[in-house]
Amino acid sequence: MTPYATELAAGIRRGHPRSVARAISLVERRDPSVDLIIRQIGGATLPAHVVGITGAPGAGKSTTVSALTSAFREIGWRVGVLAVDPSSPFTGGALLGDRIRMRDHALDPEVFIRSMASQGHLGGLSAAVPQALRILEGAGCRVVLIETVGVGQSEVEVSGVADTTVVVLTPGMGDGIQASKAGVLEIGDIFAVNKSDVDGASTTVRDIQRMIALDPTVAAATWRRPVVRTRADTGDTGSLVQALTDRWEWLQTYDALTIKRVARTALELEARVLDSVREDLRAVDGEHALDALAAAVTRGELDPAAAASLLRQRLSG
Amino acid sequence: MTPYATELAAGIRRGHPRSVARAISLVERRDPSVDLIIRQIGGATLPAHVVGITGAPGAGKSTTVSALTSAFREIGWRVGVLAVDPSSPFTGGALLGDRIRMRDHALDPEVFIRSMASQGHLGGLSAAVPQALRILEGAGCRVVLIETVGVGQSEVEVSGVADTTVVVLTPGMGDGIQASKAGVLEIGDIFAVNKSDVDGASTTVRDIQRMIALDPTVAAATWRRPVVRTRADTGDTGSLVQALTDRWEWLQTYDALTIKRVARTALELEARVLDSVREDLRAVDGEHALDALAAAVTRGELDPAAAASLLRQRLSG
Repeated sequence: MTPYATELAAGIRRGHPRSVARAISLVERRDPSVDLIIRQIGGATLPAHVVGITGAPGAGKSTTVSALTSAFREIGWRVGVLAVDPSSPFTGGALLGDRIRMRDHALDPEVFIRSMASQGHLGGLSAAVPQALRILEGAGCRVVLIETVGVGQSEVEVSGVADTTVVVLTPGMGDGIQASKAGVLEIGDIFAVNKSDVDGASTTVRDIQRMIALDPTVAAATWRRPVVRTRADTGDTGSLVQALTDRWEWLQTYDALTIKRVARTALELEARVLDSVREDLRAVDGEHALDALAAAVTRGELDPAAAASLLRQRLSG
Repeated sequence: MTPYATELAAGIRRGHPRSVARAISLVERRDPSVDLIIRQIGGATLPAHVVGITGAPGAGKSTTVSALTSAFREIGWRVGVLAVDPSSPFTGGALLGDRIRMRDHALDPEVFIRSMASQGHLGGLSAAVPQALRILEGAGCRVVLIETVGVGQSEVEVSGVADTTVVVLTPGMGDGIQASKAGVLEIGDIFAVNKSDVDGASTTVRDIQRMIALDPTVAAATWRRPVVRTRADTGDTGSLVQALTDRWEWLQTYDALTIKRVARTALELEARVLDSVREDLRAVDGEHALDALAAAVTRGELDPAAAASLLRQRLSG
């Protein structure tokens, strides 16, 4: 396994698509060789701009990711795309329907596209996505676009991992209450009003700008969250690319990048430890211990606090 | 604190709204007296039908919750409503905008309405929501409606807690790809096509029915997921109430309720243990240890696996 990991790490450093794909599959399967591969890639790679693309289903996230990929390829950048699928604990499967939109890029060896499922618990993504990012950075990607697929359980998690979070909106969902309900104001660094040819686009832009102006957190920040207009379906994402370029400069100028990276790594380390604890919990005292305690609590024989404390004790013992 | 907890538990058992509200506030603040209160309420309360209401922003979740509350009040049931706000790690605040729709019920002493925020990390909800449910069951609620507010990071979590998950859809988002992207098929036990007066409602109903028919998991289940039509704005939720009644009977007939409850309790116990581990991690070796290790990894001085293993060791020591 060791020589294989070495070979894979070398392939990744050369930007070999199949090596990258294999390594990310190992990450998803939580293969122990991943640690070795990442160690061999080393920490001496250039950082990629990690951009989370979020928004309600139907807003045009996939089209935006595809259009941005084309735009970055035009300036010669190597691009990584991670479609993060919160999936459900019930199937564990990745939904690939919308990957169709990335077909144009499928044959480009400078574009690395991967879907990642969360494998049943949310914490799984916190550990796996940063590992995939290390691999994509090792392969020389200058930008990595992370798209969240689905209802969006993982938006907040992804915004903790990304250097920049782009919220894709459509005209019509822009009225104040809907947007604040969606919680998008807090996680967005850039707002892209997509389908900007549709009636009401200007109103949506103004609404978001007004909400940003009213948001008390903005006064303290030196990054002024821009609201740009896109038409991802025709590839018109110039204003978004410009906003991302400005943002990348800002991140480096204000040392914000280092702060973001340390915070991301702290989340990653925490997720790794919690993952290992979760595994131990399921294994504690034979495989049925957690379920047996849960059944006792359900029958009213034990209260939840006492059961949790029993579990915790066995964990340390 | 002990006599106060006893008094509060007694108030909850009498269905005293202020006692319920205070106890849930204690849950949110993770006050240690919660364990005592829950122990004193006891496990001998009748189970409430715990119904998760989920769906994309704008689909009409809040209106559906409000209409269902009226419907259950009409048959004399005491109703609990939890608006679960995934919030963001950035503000921690609950968004109350849509609570306006519950104004009709605010003065009804047989309706308990609470917003709960996740306090910065997703795991927080897994521990807090089951505790709030114990309190609402203790207060004699026959049904508890859990609405997820926002983009929906907590949908999967809530579907793990609920006995029944209702997915609220609107005509127009019903085409196959959007619905499967949203991952709603897997988490839904009942599908409510709201705004059913709108053009395209029948198409949406048929689309969902077709997708259910094609879903391989359905063959094994004895619960056949119904698709009902509602107009929550006019209070027309009769078909949904009927579906919920059927579901509640089914859950009890097939012993599915016990299985659901044991699984929910296992999640609750796991969340409690992980919560305490998370706290310990942040406290380990002075308050900066996790950040210091993260900074060392970011500088390339340590690889993530080694850092995680250092953290884990210190945790047990």
